[in-house]
Amino acid sequence: MCRWLAYSGSPIMLEELLYKPAHSLIDQSLHARMGAETTNGDGFGIGWYPDDHGGPDRVVEPAVFRGTGPAWSDQNLRELARCVRSPLFVAHIRASTGTAVQQTNCHPFRYERWLWLHNGSIRDYPKLKRDLVLAVDASLYPYITGSTDSELMFFLALTFGLRDDVPGAVERMAGFVETTAARHGVADPLQMTVAVSEGKRLWAFRYSSGHASRSLFFSTSVHALRALHPENPALRKASEETRIIVSEPLGDLPGAWNPVPESCYAVVQEGHDAIRRFSPRGGAE
Amino acid sequence: MCRWLAYSGSPIMLEELLYKPAHSLIDQSLHARMGAETTNGDGFGIGWYPDDHGGPDRVVEPAVFRGTGPAWSDQNLRELARCVRSPLFVAHIRASTGTAVQQTNCHPFRYERWLWLHNGSIRDYPKLKRDLVLAVDASLYPYITGSTDSELMFFLALTFGLRDDVPGAVERMAGFVETTAARHGVADPLQMTVAVSEGKRLWAFRYSSGHASRSLFFSTSVHALRALHPENPALRKASEETRIIVSEPLGDLPGAWNPVPESCYAVVQEGHDAIRRFSPRGGAE
Amino acid sequence: MCRWLAYSGSPIMLEELLYKPAHSLIDQSLHARMGAETTNGDGFGIGWYPDDHGGPDRVVEPAVFRGTGPAWSDQNLRELARCVRSPLFVAHIRASTGTAVQQTNCHPFRYERWLWLHNGSIRDYPKLKRDLVLAVDASLYPYITGSTDSELMFFLALTFGLRDDVPGAVERMAGFVETTAARHGVADPLQMTVAVSEGKRLWAFRYSSGHASRSLFFSTSVHALRALHPENPALRKASEETRIIVSEPLGDLPGAWNPVPESCYAVVQEGHDAIRRFSPRGGAE
Amino acid sequence: MCRWLAYSGSPIMLEELLYKPAHSLIDQSLHARMGAETTNGDGFGIGWYPDDHGGPDRVVEPAVFRGTGPAWSDQNLRELARCVRSPLFVAHIRASTGTAVQQTNCHPFRYERWLWLHNGSIRDYPKLKRDLVLAVDASLYPYITGSTDSELMFFLALTFGLRDDVPGAVERMAGFVETTAARHGVADPLQMTVAVSEGKRLWAFRYSSGHASRSLFFSTSVHALRALHPENPALRKASEETRIIVSEPLGDLPGAWNPVPESCYAVVQEGHDAIRRFSPRGGAE
Repeated sequence: MCRWLAYSGSPIMLEELLYKPAHSLIDQSLHARMGAETTNGDGFGIGWYPDDHGGPDRVVEPAVFRGTGPAWSDQNLRELARCVRSPLFVAHIRASTGTAVQQTNCHPFRYERWLWLHNGSIRDYPKLKRDLVLAVDASLYPYITGSTDSELMFFLALTFGLRDDVPGAVERMAGFVETTAARHGVADPLQMTVAVSEGKRLWAFRYSSGHASRSLFFSTSVHALRALHPENPALRKASEETRIIVSEPLGDLPGAWNPVPESCYAVVQEGHDAIRRFSPRGGAE
Repeated sequence: MCRWLAYSGSPIMLEELLYKPAHSLIDQSLHARMGAETTNGDGFGIGWYPDDHGGPDRVVEPAVFRGTGPAWSDQNLRELARCVRSPLFVAHIRASTGTAVQQTNCHPFRYERWLWLHNGSIRDYPKLKRDLVLAVDASLYPYITGSTDSELMFFLALTFGLRDDVPGAVERMAGFVETTAARHGVADPLQMTVAVSEGKRLWAFRYSSGHASRSLFFSTSVHALRALHPENPALRKASEETRIIVSEPLGDLPGAWNPVPESCYAVVQEGHDAIRRFSPRGGAE
Repeated sequence: MCRWLAYSGSPIMLEELLYKPAHSLIDQSLHARMGAETTNGDGFGIGWYPDDHGGPDRVVEPAVFRGTGPAWSDQNLRELARCVRSPLFVAHIRASTGTAVQQTNCHPFRYERWLWLHNGSIRDYPKLKRDLVLAVDASLYPYITGSTDSELMFFLALTFGLRDDVPGAVERMAGFVETTAARHGVADPLQMTVAVSEGKRLWAFRYSSGHASRSLFFSTSVHALRALHPENPALRKASEETRIIVSEPLGDLPGAWNPVPESCYAVVQEGHDAIRRFSPRGGAE
Repeated sequence: MCRWLAYSGSPIMLEELLYKPAHSLIDQSLHARMGAETTNGDGFGIGWYPDDHGGPDRVVEPAVFRGTGPAWSDQNLRELARCVRSPLFVAHIRASTGTAVQQTNCHPFRYERWLWLHNGSIRDYPKLKRDLVLAVDASLYPYITGSTDSELMFFLALTFGLRDDVPGAVERMAGFVETTAARHGVADPLQMTVAVSEGKRLWAFRYSSGHASRSLFFSTSVHALRALHPENPALRKASEETRIIVSEPLGDLPGAWNPVPESCYAVVQEGHDAIRRFSPRGGAE
């Protein structure tokens, strides 16, 4: 089990969300409340798009900072959170489900301007891994640097067209994992909440083969956020479009957080955000 | 808060105590039950005296292995625990109370053939540190390599005669810390369970200025230990003298573990072990 | 021996100096040319003042990023260098002269808005350390977090008035080190090149008790820098005030680099820069 | 480029070879003399078979200790070298040729009771990797934990029968790499010195597709070794069978070290050692 957070909206300093809230993500690295594990100390990562990334058409590769120790004691993370401002960033704290604790296994994973982070796992991953790896496009294969199921899911989604159709590619990835697992006799193989972004939009998926998915929440509105953090000047100035998606709520304010429904995904984008059904598709056809 | 363990008896592989018991020390690094913090992920260390350390008069410097990541995911610790056999060893998992997570702050601390480990803290340590450091003997001062209160307590005890009179030196150290704290207006300054060894005997202290000390237990007898781990061949062959001291019990067997009483210390040695009163003394006179 | 670099001028991305030049600082971590050691793999650090740090009177604490592995393989350093832009920054690669490889021993050291980095050493430091530590002001003492001579020199300089008179305080620090060394019978105790900044000005010192100081160079003018890196758009736009100070030259362009003379210091500031004599003073009177 | 060492003979403390010789392996981590890179600071590892591993038929899994920092500053390595005694051990210092610096990429690699270490590389590895990975037996595939060419060569050799016929399997591995490379238009793909052991025998291979292999030496006889280290009591008592194989000689004694000839391998075993020709074979048929 891991915990993650994704932010899209008016540019803010990362520390506003990573450190300052009552039940912040860094606090969750020591004391998560929801999910199988209460400690998420097997590495962490942040990924952010720069504040000044030019016009809407400029392709910008996001920056990534990842560490293998626990987030709660990392001095560099604390420094960066204090001086990096971004309109779109993600953060992840890891609890390994078996693969090594090393930087190449820390989220977010990046490919070109895309960022990916995941909470969950593929059941019996060692058994399924080879067949899943073989399905990754040969031109993408050399960019896999770690050994996790999470990164492999990203490269399968890229193989299945993530850059053109995010929800479709993730649905095909999920379908392919389920088909492969079925062939190996593995039941209920996929458990996932996933965040994806290319710097402008943000997608957040909540799905599991057994329909008992890990928790995922989004902030209802910037008004509720402001009420949640009345002392926070950054949020006072945040635009109406500002949105946060989290594995578990920051703070306990009633009404501030809504669950993403089971087997659904959310799109945070200019204009109206949306929540839609998620249905795995036969990924290989 | 930290957790620790000390073993003296028939030589066993370290993994017998570090990994195999139901509520092992490594398990406690993720899920401690007693004490302020449930996670002890800010480094760890083991120290051991070699199995074949010659006759009773040979002075042997123990080996120390320390890491800055969490014990639960350390592959090297797992390897060593599997291949190191020792008749007297200690292990420590750290939860920092403020000082940096770095190897020089990990327990056990070593000086010549002495090992020291500590759970607890000196209250308002930054305020008191300078005065405490000044009291360390100038010839010992250069051997302080870290920045913790724990290591400083060790060097104060060495200054106050640890090598000649262990309980007396620890009592003088405690007295000196309390006197210094009083001068700075700091109440209830000392909280400690401490283990000390020179390779033959093992001392374990439980004390706090406010008489609300952290938990400390010793195994009642090797018979109880065998009952605790009936499947363990190492313990089946363990001598009557075998003894384990721990911050919190391994496993839940009734009768296997006895608390060290408040403000007392235990001596594990050839012949009869002993439990005696601990009384801080004016350390500086 | 270590290597370092300090930049003051038009805001540029850190990678322009850390990675892009022919004989860049990161390259020097593997293959330094000047000085006793060719490898500087015992940690590294960067410190920078933000690009948008408001008006001239605003006090800004710089950001610091430090790692304990070699700079040449650090992925996070590479990421930050690519996305951090600053008008005044420093970078350091460390070759330990005996103290532990740990983050608290990596340069730059920071106190409030001051940054300090050092190449060199205090001879017989373990012998002199206690007396030097005792001279640090009691109110500053708790902010010492590592165990190096370099950080201690910083806190001595702070004690001797760094915040009011930089050259004077560094001269008093040097004098105090030499006086203390003389009392212990240690000859030629001090070897240093030092960079100091508060975010607006930059001081660089070159001194050694034996007048055989480690190398130190400054860029003659932005014109020479442009000639050095004609392909570099950042430098093409750099102001006339832009200045770089380095342990050893980046690249081999004739005329681009001038040595700071023996027993001198340079001040990089608004208006005319200056080079002046450095003379240790009795620091304790 | 990396450097490695393998020892077989009378049990000795690891430090006898790792630290004590004039041009020891740890010294080579900072200052190697032969080969493309003089610094080997991208991690290290040791693997050893226990001193008391029972009768000749007992299968014993060796212990492995690996670190990601430079060997020269690793305190734990120093401790272990001082207290681990072994009749057969290997050590490796790494200079990455592109893959990540992480524990799973450090040598030696282990599978059951086998140890493997490698100096060299597969040219254009990212281009060839997928085809090479596909050839690994599906039952072995899940045991690959890192991302190096070195580990993949080990698993290919295991696939091609290493456990039954060491030289044959390594020759088939080499042949398969060359065939695969040829298919991709990659010339001179393989560069390797390799050590393999199962705890009793030790094989050392020197080969490269272009017949310009990295250096490899073996100690001529224990007499020469004793002459090399007259002060070393361990070697004075070493048996006639004692043998050391190294990437580059320890010390400069004339006559102590002999090169393994180009395209050959050595077998160190009970009775007569042997040097034989190495000829890659079509690995896939």
